[in-house]
Amino acid sequence: MSKLYKVAIIGFGNVGQGFTKILANKYELLNERFGVDIRIVAVCDLYKGSIADPDGLDPTMLISSIELDGDLKNMDAKYTGWTAKETIANSGANILIELAYTDLKTGEPALSHVKQALNNGMHVSMTNKGPVALAFPELRDIASKNNVQIGIEGTVMSGTPSLHLGNEMLLAAGIIQIQGILNGTTNYILGEMEAGLDYQVALIQAQALGYAEADPTGDVDGHDAAAKTVILANLFMDLELTLADIDCTGISQITSEDIAKASAQNKHWKLIGTVAKTKTGFIATVKPEMVNKDHPLASISGATNAITYSTELLGDITLIGPGAGRIETGYAVIEDILTIHKNS
Amino acid sequence: MSKLYKVAIIGFGNVGQGFTKILANKYELLNERFGVDIRIVAVCDLYKGSIADPDGLDPTMLISSIELDGDLKNMDAKYTGWTAKETIANSGANILIELAYTDLKTGEPALSHVKQALNNGMHVSMTNKGPVALAFPELRDIASKNNVQIGIEGTVMSGTPSLHLGNEMLLAAGIIQIQGILNGTTNYILGEMEAGLDYQVALIQAQALGYAEADPTGDVDGHDAAAKTVILANLFMDLELTLADIDCTGISQITSEDIAKASAQNKHWKLIGTVAKTKTGFIATVKPEMVNKDHPLASISGATNAITYSTELLGDITLIGPGAGRIETGYAVIEDILTIHKNS
Repeated sequence: MSKLYKVAIIGFGNVGQGFTKILANKYELLNERFGVDIRIVAVCDLYKGSIADPDGLDPTMLISSIELDGDLKNMDAKYTGWTAKETIANSGANILIELAYTDLKTGEPALSHVKQALNNGMHVSMTNKGPVALAFPELRDIASKNNVQIGIEGTVMSGTPSLHLGNEMLLAAGIIQIQGILNGTTNYILGEMEAGLDYQVALIQAQALGYAEADPTGDVDGHDAAAKTVILANLFMDLELTLADIDCTGISQITSEDIAKASAQNKHWKLIGTVAKTKTGFIATVKPEMVNKDHPLASISGATNAITYSTELLGDITLIGPGAGRIETGYAVIEDILTIHKNS
Repeated sequence: MSKLYKVAIIGFGNVGQGFTKILANKYELLNERFGVDIRIVAVCDLYKGSIADPDGLDPTMLISSIELDGDLKNMDAKYTGWTAKETIANSGANILIELAYTDLKTGEPALSHVKQALNNGMHVSMTNKGPVALAFPELRDIASKNNVQIGIEGTVMSGTPSLHLGNEMLLAAGIIQIQGILNGTTNYILGEMEAGLDYQVALIQAQALGYAEADPTGDVDGHDAAAKTVILANLFMDLELTLADIDCTGISQITSEDIAKASAQNKHWKLIGTVAKTKTGFIATVKPEMVNKDHPLASISGATNAITYSTELLGDITLIGPGAGRIETGYAVIEDILTIHKNS
């Protein structure tokens, strides 16, 4: 009764490994209870190696190989050494899972991979914000022309089903504003500053915990949150924004004095992404805001993320959950496949 | 391109009127953007009158008639005076919207209406907890045999899509525990007690605001929350519980001293419904609990409701939104119809 989905994975870092680990543990459950028989037929990574087998690669073996060698080069497979382009063309997959490194400026190489797959008649699941923030309207058109679907649940709040919630159940309620704590690193830093740490110390701590990258500018300057705000605006507010449309301020100018001032007023600093319709157009911002205790996002602490959809018919609906993590983001790919399955 | 759904409404109180008002305002949007052409072909209310027209009754006229006369008796219609049973049999509707008054002991008369409709090959949307808490496994079987669907989004957290979220996106993540603030009246009363009011005064205030009914026992004794806990347990934990399986304690024994004790420890009293799997079986309780500030439900205030799904793959996912209201619960019926449409 279940339906076969052959998937090709481009980029085998945290998310690809998280997805594969879930499959190693939940293959039977997904097959029997949810009707999706998911087989990995190719994995292509620029550094870890590229292998393919139309009959399927064993997820447990893929994980063991990475844990043992750090790469896939010693794994037995029918085909090896394919480039990403060859993998998409030759693997026989009907879903591309695009997880390659991309930058927020060009969206490449992911953007080319996704276009090639869609034009090949493959569905796509992707968790990188870049191509989505830069070119979603175009990708949606190509998908529609080829009668295939694009899943992007993992681009915002990792596997927390924030996009699914908006898309499936809240659009008809009339979304008039979206506000989110969309970046865990900055929320963690602001929380630690509230607890008494200096900005620089809190940042180093966030880096030590693996929340912030060695070059933390993408997080602390608000660009990561801005890309997610673009995605939310374009999906739910009928806008066609790009990153340049977001009025974006990061948290690096927030001082201990600012924090103390907020605390004295029983308020919290939060880096909030906002998109709202106005009489004359729209507002789209990412900036640190001092919020009251009764703001729906005031109590979101640590690396947790949250989105509040303000709707005409239901008022405020807030969803809180993880914003990162290899298993959590790997699960977003599972959600995309389940959605592709339901809509097919 | 849109699909016609003829709906018959049994029970024309707050929720039926809320649904009709939404339809009066959003008919075009639902039709054009979401592909559902929803026509009300019958309304049957024991006190307000019963009218039917296979070509459709105008939602705006229905609302005007109620606002003008308090009933539907002066409205022109092809057929009048049908009983609920006749309405289900003769209206030509393909969806029954069952909103009649029911009690939590027998689930009647809603239960009979729903069975008749399902056996007639009609889909059903219902917002009353009674029949669902008492007989959902049986109703699901009848629906399955007749190849129709049952929508119950409004039975928990009104139109906040809490059941949809669990059902569509979290089941595959492995739900291991569900906790919820499932009753707005008691949450409001506990909040007012924290602000200094006595239990009796807070209760009278809740009644004055329309949160609590004249006989408040269903809320304050925890039965309302218990029925919702049963629904969550049966939908998401593979259990087949009835109300008697819930270990249920209300809030009427909470004293101002208890509140003060919690506040001194920086904690909050919340009436929490819990269902969890254990090594030996399950836990299913509704009881007042003193929760820490960092508990995901600690900051839920006033009449707002919230559910935290604890999952194996995503950790805690919390959804916050309204738990009552005529438009909010009316929107739950819209969500049910959209889901029926997607799955058809």
